[in-house]
Amino acid sequence: MSAKNFDIEQHPFGPAVGRLVHQFSLLPGIGRKTAERLANHIISCSKGEALALAEAIHEVRNTIRRCKNCFNLTDRELCSICSDPRRDRTVVCVVEQPKDVNSLEAASSFDGTYHVLGGRIAPLEGINPDDLSINPLVQRIRRDGVKELIMATNPTLEGDGTALYISNLLDGMDVRITRLARGIATGSVLEFANKEMLSDALRGRQSF
Amino acid sequence: MSAKNFDIEQHPFGPAVGRLVHQFSLLPGIGRKTAERLANHIISCSKGEALALAEAIHEVRNTIRRCKNCFNLTDRELCSICSDPRRDRTVVCVVEQPKDVNSLEAASSFDGTYHVLGGRIAPLEGINPDDLSINPLVQRIRRDGVKELIMATNPTLEGDGTALYISNLLDGMDVRITRLARGIATGSVLEFANKEMLSDALRGRQSF
Repeated sequence: MSAKNFDIEQHPFGPAVGRLVHQFSLLPGIGRKTAERLANHIISCSKGEALALAEAIHEVRNTIRRCKNCFNLTDRELCSICSDPRRDRTVVCVVEQPKDVNSLEAASSFDGTYHVLGGRIAPLEGINPDDLSINPLVQRIRRDGVKELIMATNPTLEGDGTALYISNLLDGMDVRITRLARGIATGSVLEFANKEMLSDALRGRQSF
Repeated sequence: MSAKNFDIEQHPFGPAVGRLVHQFSLLPGIGRKTAERLANHIISCSKGEALALAEAIHEVRNTIRRCKNCFNLTDRELCSICSDPRRDRTVVCVVEQPKDVNSLEAASSFDGTYHVLGGRIAPLEGINPDDLSINPLVQRIRRDGVKELIMATNPTLEGDGTALYISNLLDGMDVRITRLARGIATGSVLEFANKEMLSDALRGRQSF
């Protein structure tokens, strides 16, 4: 993207603003024009407000780490879910990213725990099983006597492939492996459902 | 906006992430979902990249100030335009904001200097003439023997009003006051030009 390689030193307001515009333009979804607008805001807002953003970035990078049990993001050694005695540690929902945990928690219909892989297996991008927290998952299954593993990776080729890889790896271990139901989305209309959604929905039909 | 008053302390990844999401959501044009996405990026990118953004914010707030002559943004006492001996200090183009200077400079057709008001008179928003750099402009006209003042405030009710206020204020001083030409925009089509644009264009018609 051309937004990323403009000349920082030549910014009309000097290189400091050029560097700030450049740093903003490195953020996802922020182009050159938006980066200029954000930099203008940082220059013209109160100094306290500008430095509060810088401070929040520092604080996050200095306090946020991975939960040592489930690899979700947390500011403590164990995340709030893993350290909650009411959550069932023998039922583990496997997701790709920390944000997937938030989505599932927002649904408030799960009282087990999670395991965050940190991505999905994608050989073309150089992401191999060793790059994900798969070994810690296997150790966790043994240690905690996990009874059920719910695969909640994304319903994509790579997400499904990652779930399949893990289920093959656990072959022979005494753990039930399930995956999220597939079908039509509540609130959607059949007219716009695609072939895959409809055949998933037919295959998994439930008694009424 | 509801994006600004969610509970920082209750963020699933802890209050540090909540604060970062909140700070991002204070930026113009950034809603809650985008703020979450930016915060996720700050958490998952390299520590160097995250801290470079914080550092750029600090640097800008510690080095950028107003040019003491024209009130444009600069990292020195005089901005690069005011300190350039080739620029004509007797022709001053009056704009609302520093970004307007950039737009005009990008057109590269002006060799005079600028004066940045810092906004426009807007009594309903509590912005009065004293809040703008109008007094320093009058002093500058006297000191530098300014011959022409080109009003380049925005072609809005308030921009025009500000230009009118300044021209009334300078009544009796030996300075020619002009404003940017109004008419149809090069590259546009007449079909979509509105009444005001077309009557401006007719009124200001030029010989061919």
